Amino acid sequence: MSRVYNFSAGPAVLPEAVLEGAAAEMLNYQESGMCVMEMSHRSKVYEEIIGEAEQDLRDLMSIPENYKVLFLQGGASTQFAMIPMNLMKNRVADYIVTGEWATRAAKEGARFGKVNVVASSEDKTFSYIPDCSDLPISEEADYLHICENNTIFGTKFWTLPNTKGKVLISDMSSCILSEPIDVTKYGLIYAGAQKNVGPAGVTIVMIREDLITEDVLPNTPTMLTYKTHANNDSMYNTPPTYSIYVCGKVFKWLKDLGGLEAIKKVNEYKAGLFYDFLDQSEMFSGTVRKEDRSLMNIPFVTGNNELDAKFIKEAAANGLVNLKGHRIVGGMRASVYNAMPVKGVEALIDFMEKFEKENQ
Amino acid sequence: MSRVYNFSAGPAVLPEAVLEGAAAEMLNYQESGMCVMEMSHRSKVYEEIIGEAEQDLRDLMSIPENYKVLFLQGGASTQFAMIPMNLMKNRVADYIVTGEWATRAAKEGARFGKVNVVASSEDKTFSYIPDCSDLPISEEADYLHICENNTIFGTKFWTLPNTKGKVLISDMSSCILSEPIDVTKYGLIYAGAQKNVGPAGVTIVMIREDLITEDVLPNTPTMLTYKTHANNDSMYNTPPTYSIYVCGKVFKWLKDLGGLEAIKKVNEYKAGLFYDFLDQSEMFSGTVRKEDRSLMNIPFVTGNNELDAKFIKEAAANGLVNLKGHRIVGGMRASVYNAMPVKGVEALIDFMEKFEKENQ
Repeated sequence: MSRVYNFSAGPAVLPEAVLEGAAAEMLNYQESGMCVMEMSHRSKVYEEIIGEAEQDLRDLMSIPENYKVLFLQGGASTQFAMIPMNLMKNRVADYIVTGEWATRAAKEGARFGKVNVVASSEDKTFSYIPDCSDLPISEEADYLHICENNTIFGTKFWTLPNTKGKVLISDMSSCILSEPIDVTKYGLIYAGAQKNVGPAGVTIVMIREDLITEDVLPNTPTMLTYKTHANNDSMYNTPPTYSIYVCGKVFKWLKDLGGLEAIKKVNEYKAGLFYDFLDQSEMFSGTVRKEDRSLMNIPFVTGNNELDAKFIKEAAANGLVNLKGHRIVGGMRASVYNAMPVKGVEALIDFMEKFEKENQ
Repeated sequence: MSRVYNFSAGPAVLPEAVLEGAAAEMLNYQESGMCVMEMSHRSKVYEEIIGEAEQDLRDLMSIPENYKVLFLQGGASTQFAMIPMNLMKNRVADYIVTGEWATRAAKEGARFGKVNVVASSEDKTFSYIPDCSDLPISEEADYLHICENNTIFGTKFWTLPNTKGKVLISDMSSCILSEPIDVTKYGLIYAGAQKNVGPAGVTIVMIREDLITEDVLPNTPTMLTYKTHANNDSMYNTPPTYSIYVCGKVFKWLKDLGGLEAIKKVNEYKAGLFYDFLDQSEMFSGTVRKEDRSLMNIPFVTGNNELDAKFIKEAAANGLVNLKGHRIVGGMRASVYNAMPVKGVEALIDFMEKFEKENQ
């Protein structure tokens, strides 16, 4: 089988050019005589790799100088603890619960202090984003936490919540780098790399410098203290060197494409094609309130479990893989991250049209 | 420049065959149509990769069934906290301090309870392993912690300490898989992958099942609880999928070589060549007490800082790189992990002979 169109929710498709570059450099990175995996993280050649990766990310996202960029490990799940351990000074935090990962973040937060769920869309299986213009923000809240794009349910915050002056923290694992954002609206942004950035095993954190303190909760490990990593430019211990290198290649690929304004247009075009198709189809339908639809993750159903299963199987046989929906939602889900080519979305739509005709 | 001989202490040299295999499979792993980086960790094809990696490691090290094998993130530095958070039931632990990392482990442990340093070789710049046959083990100690091979100082425990019945915990980051060991002598073994196993960003933990409990210290994050990962076969969240795949390739390479008995012979031969040369040289000398010498990391000096610097520079120009010693010890260090070919050690010795003649 040649390359497939991989609609996995994560780990997910990467740009072919990035993989080709990594393969070409596997035994000898730029005349260094070694693979990036073999390099001391303290070597000059590797310091350039991680330094450029950070600078390219800063350029892409226009990250202000008073934000630190950290390359960490442990995924968003580790951030679920690291955030309260570092930032819950009053031991109170507000969470908006719009899906599985937002729920997990709130649950982990509650191990460290009082968590107030100030809004939730659980009543309708997280199929929408609640109105967050006037929330009962807690007086004492140290921050307000959101999961900005909900990978499983396919919703996205198109308007940020009114935090009433509190620090906004956002899990952007499944929408980072999909469009330009205003970093200054956030105190902390984090994202597992394995959806829209690079290989699993890197967590990107952007944190406003005034939030980095030594005043952390009791029993906070050195490795789970932001200050440790901020003081050492993500080199307190050995970082996931090769994975950061691949992320760096993705950043360069994005810059070459024209940056986040350009990729946003591509993403709107791809998602637009797909949603337009869903909206006119008599067999397939989306599961999400229209105004809250994600650009990245698109769940859809036929309404018939057997037909769903048949579709997933036949699609896979046609090189359109990982379309099975998450077990909580069922049906199908097409994740169309930055690296999914327009041709992949077109091929999926063509296949769905054909399938619809053949199975009327 | 073609491939160099890379004597880095970590991240370190990997077998060329492993890198060649990874490069060949970069765009399409075994007809899956995708790179391993792009695979859902829940997919059948990836479950086989991680399952085989675990089984191969179990085979290589003869890991008994009552030990869990975990693929985690965060390096040994995260284990320094995770161990006391999970195992310090009495809030007391004994540590043997034989180098920089052992010191850091003890220091981090002391954040969580009472740490007794029951032996140390700090008095002689960690150039030896203390006698550990009759230590003042604490009555209440939950465990005894050692760093089995000291990467910076080049020493190794050739005899395990008498734990007097306490659980032995070993940081094997720089000697794992270098020779057969008896896993049953340990309660927990851990190792960052980036020295003798694979890419940075994977931590291997082997833990006896009876030590995995829910009774952890207050404020222990879900992600820092061994039970979380043990209950989910290292798949509680997205593991560092690609890095684990590369580790798996290294395990297969070791099995093909004949396993740990075979690699031990190679390692003894390589280190033997090098120590024999050092012992007869009039210019170079080792820095470690002979009976405590590591098979993996060999620090050496000329006794003259300028000559050391000249040696390091000229060696690099001859394709023998990363020979600079750690800043704490100075001089030189040759790390000769499993993947360093005999030819690399021979080339280094040849160069040292030549250098010695030319600089008499």
